[in-house]
Amino acid sequence: MTHTTPKTPLLDRVAGPADLRRMPDDELAALAGELRAELISAVSETGGHLGSSLGVVELTVAIHAVFNTPMDKLIWDVGHQCYPHKILTGRRDRIRTLRQKGGLSGFTKRAESAFDPFGAAHSSTSISAALGFTVGRDMGQATGDAIAVIGDGAISAGMAYEALNNAGAEGRRMFVILNDNEMSIAPPVGAMSAYLSGLYANEPLAKMRSLAEGFEAAMPAPMREGAKRARQLVTGGLSGSGTLFEELGFEYVGPIDGHDMRQVLPVLRAARARATGPVLIHCCTVKGKGYAPAETSADKYHGVAKFDVETGAQAKKAGGAPSYTSVFGKALSEEAARDPDIVAVTAAMPAGTGVDIMAQRFPGRVFDVGIAEQHGVTFAAGMAASGLKPFAAIYSTFLQRGYDQVVHDVALQGLPVRFAIDRAGLVGADGATHAGAFDIGYLSSLPGFTVMAAADEAELKHMVATAAAHDDGPIAFRYPRGAGTGVTLPERGQVLEIGRGRVLCEGDDVALLSLGAHLSECLDAAAMLEDEGLSVTVADARFAKPLDEALVLRLARTHRALVTVEEGAEGGFGSVVMHALARHGAFDRGLAIRNVCLPDRFIEQASPAEMYADAGMTAADIAAMARGAVGRGTEVVPLSVAT
Amino acid sequence: MTHTTPKTPLLDRVAGPADLRRMPDDELAALAGELRAELISAVSETGGHLGSSLGVVELTVAIHAVFNTPMDKLIWDVGHQCYPHKILTGRRDRIRTLRQKGGLSGFTKRAESAFDPFGAAHSSTSISAALGFTVGRDMGQATGDAIAVIGDGAISAGMAYEALNNAGAEGRRMFVILNDNEMSIAPPVGAMSAYLSGLYANEPLAKMRSLAEGFEAAMPAPMREGAKRARQLVTGGLSGSGTLFEELGFEYVGPIDGHDMRQVLPVLRAARARATGPVLIHCCTVKGKGYAPAETSADKYHGVAKFDVETGAQAKKAGGAPSYTSVFGKALSEEAARDPDIVAVTAAMPAGTGVDIMAQRFPGRVFDVGIAEQHGVTFAAGMAASGLKPFAAIYSTFLQRGYDQVVHDVALQGLPVRFAIDRAGLVGADGATHAGAFDIGYLSSLPGFTVMAAADEAELKHMVATAAAHDDGPIAFRYPRGAGTGVTLPERGQVLEIGRGRVLCEGDDVALLSLGAHLSECLDAAAMLEDEGLSVTVADARFAKPLDEALVLRLARTHRALVTVEEGAEGGFGSVVMHALARHGAFDRGLAIRNVCLPDRFIEQASPAEMYADAGMTAADIAAMARGAVGRGTEVVPLSVAT
Repeated sequence: MTHTTPKTPLLDRVAGPADLRRMPDDELAALAGELRAELISAVSETGGHLGSSLGVVELTVAIHAVFNTPMDKLIWDVGHQCYPHKILTGRRDRIRTLRQKGGLSGFTKRAESAFDPFGAAHSSTSISAALGFTVGRDMGQATGDAIAVIGDGAISAGMAYEALNNAGAEGRRMFVILNDNEMSIAPPVGAMSAYLSGLYANEPLAKMRSLAEGFEAAMPAPMREGAKRARQLVTGGLSGSGTLFEELGFEYVGPIDGHDMRQVLPVLRAARARATGPVLIHCCTVKGKGYAPAETSADKYHGVAKFDVETGAQAKKAGGAPSYTSVFGKALSEEAARDPDIVAVTAAMPAGTGVDIMAQRFPGRVFDVGIAEQHGVTFAAGMAASGLKPFAAIYSTFLQRGYDQVVHDVALQGLPVRFAIDRAGLVGADGATHAGAFDIGYLSSLPGFTVMAAADEAELKHMVATAAAHDDGPIAFRYPRGAGTGVTLPERGQVLEIGRGRVLCEGDDVALLSLGAHLSECLDAAAMLEDEGLSVTVADARFAKPLDEALVLRLARTHRALVTVEEGAEGGFGSVVMHALARHGAFDRGLAIRNVCLPDRFIEQASPAEMYADAGMTAADIAAMARGAVGRGTEVVPLSVAT
Repeated sequence: MTHTTPKTPLLDRVAGPADLRRMPDDELAALAGELRAELISAVSETGGHLGSSLGVVELTVAIHAVFNTPMDKLIWDVGHQCYPHKILTGRRDRIRTLRQKGGLSGFTKRAESAFDPFGAAHSSTSISAALGFTVGRDMGQATGDAIAVIGDGAISAGMAYEALNNAGAEGRRMFVILNDNEMSIAPPVGAMSAYLSGLYANEPLAKMRSLAEGFEAAMPAPMREGAKRARQLVTGGLSGSGTLFEELGFEYVGPIDGHDMRQVLPVLRAARARATGPVLIHCCTVKGKGYAPAETSADKYHGVAKFDVETGAQAKKAGGAPSYTSVFGKALSEEAARDPDIVAVTAAMPAGTGVDIMAQRFPGRVFDVGIAEQHGVTFAAGMAASGLKPFAAIYSTFLQRGYDQVVHDVALQGLPVRFAIDRAGLVGADGATHAGAFDIGYLSSLPGFTVMAAADEAELKHMVATAAAHDDGPIAFRYPRGAGTGVTLPERGQVLEIGRGRVLCEGDDVALLSLGAHLSECLDAAAMLEDEGLSVTVADARFAKPLDEALVLRLARTHRALVTVEEGAEGGFGSVVMHALARHGAFDRGLAIRNVCLPDRFIEQASPAEMYADAGMTAADIAAMARGAVGRGTEVVPLSVAT
């Protein structure tokens, strides 16, 4: 891997944003170039969201140069484009620790810096947060102006629309920068650009849009086309009409070239100097800007592995087992080939969820609704009501966005929507914001729901088949991020008996009852315990709901201790098991039950192995829990603590 | 109460919508009048959502007369305006059982009729569902066209925007009727109206809007103003420009007078005959139309009690204890008077949540964000991050709409947003869709959250004070719908010690550990058990999180049985208690624990007392559970069932 340390004389003078405010504009433009080089060099070592960050290098410099951060609150939507922001705000020395254990988060994070006033990772929250800070400012809190920077994808979500609507009605001074990288303006040549920034600098804010229109007419044809296309995004194509944002109460400025400091700086300065109400500044940028491998294949460079700066070649993972995602995608596609009623829904994640595999074969049967989980879930419910068999493939953490729709439109009506829940459990470098910790609980509490978790990728294939065949109410199956265990995949998934677990090995001292992908750790733990002379049963519940109560009660009756194991928060599988045991009086005469689950805290980013160790979910942890339950070793929490 | 049975000769001929399709237009108009009278008469006996239903009488007749329901799928958004629809679709004989146990639901409901293809109660779901049916139709399912009817409030929610956006992009033939009762067109006189409907009948669909514009110019001044205002809603006020709906890909037709069958019928017929893609028909209606008491005070007649048809006077409730809602509203207002940093957020429910009491005194500190729970929660998080002390007052069932925001923006960042959760538990006549069954579970699983439940209205007042004082992370308190217990209210709420329960009475056989508003049932149950010679402890946990572990472990050690009591689904308080007991090894030597909670099914509408009996949550149920746990009486679920 090539690693050349870029020369960064201007960047070396920047200890924080205050230093930017002393630089002349041409130095700021040059600084942006150095920042870009530093960013590429750093991410080549760490991997991460390179393309998004490259697209906002100039914007980042300009916002910090013009606004009084951190008193003014800069809020990055999603937050994955914050690497240049972190470099400029006192975290340059740690930028090569990005997304690693103990290092910088890959997103904005309040705990990390005063320059991160509102953390993110899920999309479309920034305008709501900015309005909150704005009200705080108006009510005398020690905070200045709020600036939200939001992408064209994120602003299309319902939540952003709600926030624009409310902020427009409130009419308070605040700033939304629309970072639009769906279309770019051809780079303006010098004189034109200078002309534009001159106009912006001297005119009242309210006139900026019409001035931009006048300017547009004077542009050379190719540039004019670009500007026109950009305007069409927000005007519906009718020249001279109001934009959506204006209808919602915002003053609209733009579009401007977000990579031209001669446009960005004066527009931001003018907006800051003159705004009295909410202002939307429409910046056109290029994802991956300034790094050819990223610009030419923007999708591949959204989230990158470590890469070679010279060639752009990304480090490849060792072969190994297929990912759960690809196993799901292929299995779904195979089921879809057998049953023409099967359709799939994704919320802007066709590749991430693997439904792109089905889309290649059956393009008319896969629906990408955009960042719109609320709509996506109810749309799937409507398709189910019509007789189709929809699979809604949504990450655990994002399904939280459609939770009421899962309750109200799916569960209450008993509609057979199939939820394919990827990224269940801890997710590695994306950290706590992307963890899927809560789904077992929030789904198992819903009447009529069937909730499964796959112990390995062969089980996942069975569960896809089971879900396809299940027309009696909603059904969900969860599986983790990353590679499977490498088991042999069945030619075709079997339809599992609903509510039946399976026993992997039989013993009579301790029973380990697993739900989901820690079955292999349970088997490893069992081997450790057997070595110590304990006789161990290992079972895979397969279903959190309906629970295999006969199995659970048998294990409780025939063992000295029962340990439940799940990669989820308290309130999930262990809770379902204990409610059943209580209902049947199984605790009355004594049962040493223990629950291995995620601890009651958020787990920061690290490698998966490090996160499992942190969470107490390794085979050794499971064995220790079992040992304590049968009176060997120490109780994890001694009873005396609370007496 | 006056009750005059209206004369309904035409309505008597209608067994179902097919009969409407044989009637000439003038009979349909007359039928609408009869339907309105029948509706008023019925709701005067049952109470319910009168105003909304009165507003759609003509629309209901017209849609069923023009479209081929139930093959065509008519989807009422929210569904509370469905009473005339129910009368016309075979449920006239049961309309006087509305909202009662065993009677008709107050909303649309799939289980009730083939004419209710997609149930509702929460808002803004209809367009998503309609798109689902539309895809089903296009993929060969046995379903016709889908028609969503959605109000101007509901369409402003983010979810509806997501659905419009997706449906517009899909470009499939479907119908959205915007039922706009924010503004009304002055009732057109005969000739004008006939002229308009003639125009509509003879022109291609695409020209309808421009024809309506031409017609508008010819209107007498007062009518013209009304029409213009209506158009401004969707055009942003710029004459001739595209509407928001057109920008999203819909064909826009309107505005039309939704009470004039001479407009509604031909427009629907034309749309049905000629639409090739998605069409939005903008109908202006009057909430409460045709019943003076409802028209003149639309808010009072949104949800009404039984009333006198002649005078409009509603039946008054007996005095009794104040409602939890009003106790919260007053307590919040008092705290706000003491602390200028306190603010409140409501999502279109100022009166329902009681924050209107604070708004009267501090109008600038109460924010109604509209039907926008996602934005509302994150907006509150932003205010908290700025230093303010926000109370987000949202019903339990609607907080599900902002669940991801609670997780991602509030809990992950540890921001001190105070959640005031009204309507926790069963809610009576609104039925299963409005029950707040899941909040204890979905909040208690979140790291760093404090979760309280009020045993009575004095406790609620303490919890408001506790939340106001709590700056160390998020805090929530839940309380039920309806009247309090009548306890004396303290002059001022006390700040409770976080994570401490209280013991009401001490015994040594059975411990009843209550969370929330069933404490009085626990005390009643204790009295029954004491009469039988058992010695009973009754405790109020106050906190589901952090749990008073010392109290729980002491109760477990010193009693033969422990019964947890909560008005929520499995996975909530009982689960938190059992996880703690398991962690501390308290089950190892035997503990007869039982959980009284909501059963694993949805509870249909009835009176609160009937619902509690149905759910097994009465004092007698609690006593029976305790009796079983100590080996008296029968185990509720005998162990042998599953062996």
